[in-house]
Amino acid sequence: MLSKTYTKYIQSLHHKKFRDTENVFIAEGSKVVMELLKSGTISCEMIVGLTEWMQQNEVLIRKYYTGPLQVIEHFELEKISALTTPNQVLAVFKKCKKTTDVKGKLCIMLDTIQDPGNLGTIIRIADWFGIQSILCSEDCADMYNPKVVQSTMGSLCRVEMVYTNLVVWMQKNNSIKTYAATLSGKKVSELKGLTEGIIIIGNESKGISDEIMQLCTQKITIPKTGQAESLNAAVAAGIILSHL
Amino acid sequence: MLSKTYTKYIQSLHHKKFRDTENVFIAEGSKVVMELLKSGTISCEMIVGLTEWMQQNEVLIRKYYTGPLQVIEHFELEKISALTTPNQVLAVFKKCKKTTDVKGKLCIMLDTIQDPGNLGTIIRIADWFGIQSILCSEDCADMYNPKVVQSTMGSLCRVEMVYTNLVVWMQKNNSIKTYAATLSGKKVSELKGLTEGIIIIGNESKGISDEIMQLCTQKITIPKTGQAESLNAAVAAGIILSHL
Repeated sequence: MLSKTYTKYIQSLHHKKFRDTENVFIAEGSKVVMELLKSGTISCEMIVGLTEWMQQNEVLIRKYYTGPLQVIEHFELEKISALTTPNQVLAVFKKCKKTTDVKGKLCIMLDTIQDPGNLGTIIRIADWFGIQSILCSEDCADMYNPKVVQSTMGSLCRVEMVYTNLVVWMQKNNSIKTYAATLSGKKVSELKGLTEGIIIIGNESKGISDEIMQLCTQKITIPKTGQAESLNAAVAAGIILSHL
Repeated sequence: MLSKTYTKYIQSLHHKKFRDTENVFIAEGSKVVMELLKSGTISCEMIVGLTEWMQQNEVLIRKYYTGPLQVIEHFELEKISALTTPNQVLAVFKKCKKTTDVKGKLCIMLDTIQDPGNLGTIIRIADWFGIQSILCSEDCADMYNPKVVQSTMGSLCRVEMVYTNLVVWMQKNNSIKTYAATLSGKKVSELKGLTEGIIIIGNESKGISDEIMQLCTQKITIPKTGQAESLNAAVAAGIILSHL
């Protein structure tokens, strides 16, 4: 049985404000929780799960985690879950450490990516292509939003995320080359072999802001042969990285 | 004021069963509705919208559509909308015509893509790269599911979609080359210039089924340099098509 206090504590973590105060976040579902435990880069505070899930996974969990485990009933999981369909297990993790060094590497910059699913998918894409750092504007979705955590599928703490004022950052780091993904510009296939610089992906409907556009080194584009007006932001990020 | 009968009719269209019986579907939001009207490939039965939206858009709508328009109140839109946050306008469209000829072209085959957002995004990607046909297994999400319609952003009726038993289809059409997206196989960049054949994308968690795998001509893969276990199905589709 989960205490009232702990139930309220987990519910509060659905909100950014409390995640920031407590410096923790929640992850749900067997795959995501196990991946985060295995990653070894992140510290877990508590795991609560249904009886059956605990029985099946306790031995494996104990290889990576020595902290408290608690068995709960389905109705309790429903109370604390941020998912429409709660998925067997929920864990509270400490936030990842932040140390971002972008020099001499390929990185991603996200200007106002607001859909948590898109942000999570982009983190997963970065992890697939070995990109270590993502710079986010301050109005991007929160990386610890439960939906973001869900769609990263465990990649969350393998990619360093920094939230900052992008305009100020670009002005300070103007020796680093930046490539803005737009509807016109140099074809991505012509950038093949690029190993250093920053790929900028813009907002889902408005694209990249004018201020950032003016500071970027080069516009790049994914050539279109059909009629769709635009591509999903995460899909665009995946295509660009696959060509470098 | 929307009649009780018409309110119930639209609500029924949230469900595949009734969309199939009535041969219509709903689209919501200014962008999607306007795009579908402009596409000219699809017939509209009714548009209902908030006063302000109607005032702003009536002249433009009348260029593409001569049927009934109805102004409704916000609480009425909330009743009939399939969205969490209703978005100014909802329209009822007749389903698109189905005529799929895959010979001599590049096409996509989807094996059990169950997430409506993924399906919609893949349709939009296909439209971006000029792919005209998508073959779907019978257990893929319904292309007329409101969430699919939403995420296609108007590309819906520019791409022909056929739902069929893929194994039977592949056995009948065994002269057509098929390329299965997997975690191993030929690098997608080596397929550059391919103008004919079918790219197979598998289920979000299980991948491509064994039966289909055995019938395919060639395995293809997106090279990984990082640690993520997999890529989102729509992102994988986008990356593969961008390399052809």
